[in-house]
Amino acid sequence: MSELETVIKSRRSANKFVTGVEISDKDLDEIFQLAKFAPSAFNLQHTHYMVIREPELKQKVYEAANKQYKILTSSAVIVVLGRLDAYHEVGKINEGLLNLGVINKQEFDLEVESVTSFYEAGGDAFKRDEAVRNASLSAMQMMLIAKDQGWDTCPMIGFNPEALRNALSIPESSIPVMLVSIGKEDTSSQRPRGYRKPVAEFVTYM
Amino acid sequence: MSELETVIKSRRSANKFVTGVEISDKDLDEIFQLAKFAPSAFNLQHTHYMVIREPELKQKVYEAANKQYKILTSSAVIVVLGRLDAYHEVGKINEGLLNLGVINKQEFDLEVESVTSFYEAGGDAFKRDEAVRNASLSAMQMMLIAKDQGWDTCPMIGFNPEALRNALSIPESSIPVMLVSIGKEDTSSQRPRGYRKPVAEFVTYM
Repeated sequence: MSELETVIKSRRSANKFVTGVEISDKDLDEIFQLAKFAPSAFNLQHTHYMVIREPELKQKVYEAANKQYKILTSSAVIVVLGRLDAYHEVGKINEGLLNLGVINKQEFDLEVESVTSFYEAGGDAFKRDEAVRNASLSAMQMMLIAKDQGWDTCPMIGFNPEALRNALSIPESSIPVMLVSIGKEDTSSQRPRGYRKPVAEFVTYM
Repeated sequence: MSELETVIKSRRSANKFVTGVEISDKDLDEIFQLAKFAPSAFNLQHTHYMVIREPELKQKVYEAANKQYKILTSSAVIVVLGRLDAYHEVGKINEGLLNLGVINKQEFDLEVESVTSFYEAGGDAFKRDEAVRNASLSAMQMMLIAKDQGWDTCPMIGFNPEALRNALSIPESSIPVMLVSIGKEDTSSQRPRGYRKPVAEFVTYM
């Protein structure tokens, strides 16, 4: 079994965390240093992470997330945001390639123009899809990295987006795509892994 | 460096594939056998994959995807679908846990009822978000597995969803979330990896 296979098979969505376990900035930095290599459309890096450890703020997230107990026992709850306006940074992100001479000024200008018009033509619905899509790609990679570094996670969508927005002053230019609670799993009452459909049921070869 | 770190850092979005490389059902099965362990909301497994290798169908996908050359040189192009109606299967998916006695009949009924009303209350917008979110989680895990098994991939969003729907008879109950072209990368004209923002720019510690 490859190490990746081991990580994938041992990653389970944690239902309960061991209380009192702290996660440091350094622990988290190590996860995000690798998470950043996830792909994103046009390399726009639509994802922003808010890491909540402070008890009062965590309580607010708990209230906005249907009082799911695992939030309180987690070492941190991470709000995964997708930025609706990520394409505004297309110039900034491609500046390095221009300066290195990998692309010339015409190619740079074309990239800025075509990416901008792609998002503007797509409108609000497309921008929202993109925020959800790219933040989810990043979050999946992040959860695998966390497991590899000894941390358990649980992705969560049971929250009230507006209550969360108010509690954390999330700007209108971002949407909360999911919460990821992180800590050390308390496996004392762990259930068997949920049923997975056989490949033939979710793959069609054409 | 852990093996996961190596896989993550060596996974690049391929711009060009070596032509004439075939990918077999067995190669693909091995990828999907592991991809299925990706998390999904309520374990509903919203993702369906359509694997296109047949030249005439591939040509149609190519036409629907702005004639991106890498589609033609890929060993297969995989259409990642998100199912809007995945919650209809909540009973089927939890039946096993009921039969094993992990949950009792009351818990089973409560799960079926609460998941169904959660999606129905969320309406079309929430169902769409869920399709995009869960399919993207699965696709990220799938691309890492592919890399670990010696395959290069490229996630793509530049396509016309309606043209793709018509070309492949995608049912209304699913939406195409992204394409993933897969093959062996032709690295002859590979660019340096795109710029990544430093952690402090995309993570806020609160």
